[in-house]
Amino acid sequence: MFKDITPLLLEPQALGETVELLAKHAESLGGIDYVIAAEARGFILGAAVATRIGAGFIPARKPGKLPSVVSSVEYELEYGLDTLEMHSDALAGGKRVLVHDDLLATGGTAKATCSLVEEAGASVAGCSFVIELSFLGGREALAGYDVHALIDYTD
Amino acid sequence: MFKDITPLLLEPQALGETVELLAKHAESLGGIDYVIAAEARGFILGAAVATRIGAGFIPARKPGKLPSVVSSVEYELEYGLDTLEMHSDALAGGKRVLVHDDLLATGGTAKATCSLVEEAGASVAGCSFVIELSFLGGREALAGYDVHALIDYTD
Repeated sequence: MFKDITPLLLEPQALGETVELLAKHAESLGGIDYVIAAEARGFILGAAVATRIGAGFIPARKPGKLPSVVSSVEYELEYGLDTLEMHSDALAGGKRVLVHDDLLATGGTAKATCSLVEEAGASVAGCSFVIELSFLGGREALAGYDVHALIDYTD
Repeated sequence: MFKDITPLLLEPQALGETVELLAKHAESLGGIDYVIAAEARGFILGAAVATRIGAGFIPARKPGKLPSVVSSVEYELEYGLDTLEMHSDALAGGKRVLVHDDLLATGGTAKATCSLVEEAGASVAGCSFVIELSFLGGREALAGYDVHALIDYTD
């Protein structure tokens, strides 16, 4: 089974309403300074939501892609390890950050993104997804965070 | 030398104005049905511009990332070949498409993206970038297309 937002992006009305729903949720969290999202699919709606709510956007990238000094976090995937990086000077202490991705599966990528935020001294205001595959337990992996998804597939 | 839009994305006002300027240019082209952008950095502003102008968004991806039947184009980089793919059913004939990327360097990626659009029977309404490194000749590689960039570095 493969859930994918590509067909949704093709439809202007669906794209616009998805950004609007994610933005309304972000605004309900109050005072979001930045949206952060992991490469590559998270970039698609993450920056659109940031623009819509008047926040900045932080791309969390695969290793070696960013040109300046980075902080990084290593995390487990089903088969092996992966790494996310962001510019070390992207975030200052006290900033409130929304973590976005298109899909919440096991939660590994989102949790790693939360770690990048917190290691910079900023705080995670919430985690926001288009699709949640709740049978994979991602919400449990993100226990303690405000987790929100527009669509839930329960099996 | 490495030109990078990451610091711009962090600033809410700069992010908002960049999307607005790209959207105004897109609207001046008239009747854009889709914005297409290449993985990964093109996704950041491409989808935000699509949302802003009420168009759909097509992600052009690295090989093996899309779950359905794809059409693909191979193109030359400075060292070797690369490939971009999009869903074969993403585009129908007669649609007008804006090609977006953050940076216009030698133009190889943008030209390959134009080929994906045209091989689907759709037309390229224009190519739109945040930064152009005009000393690298990307505009010549895209001869025949309407090419627009917000910022030009001439050396």
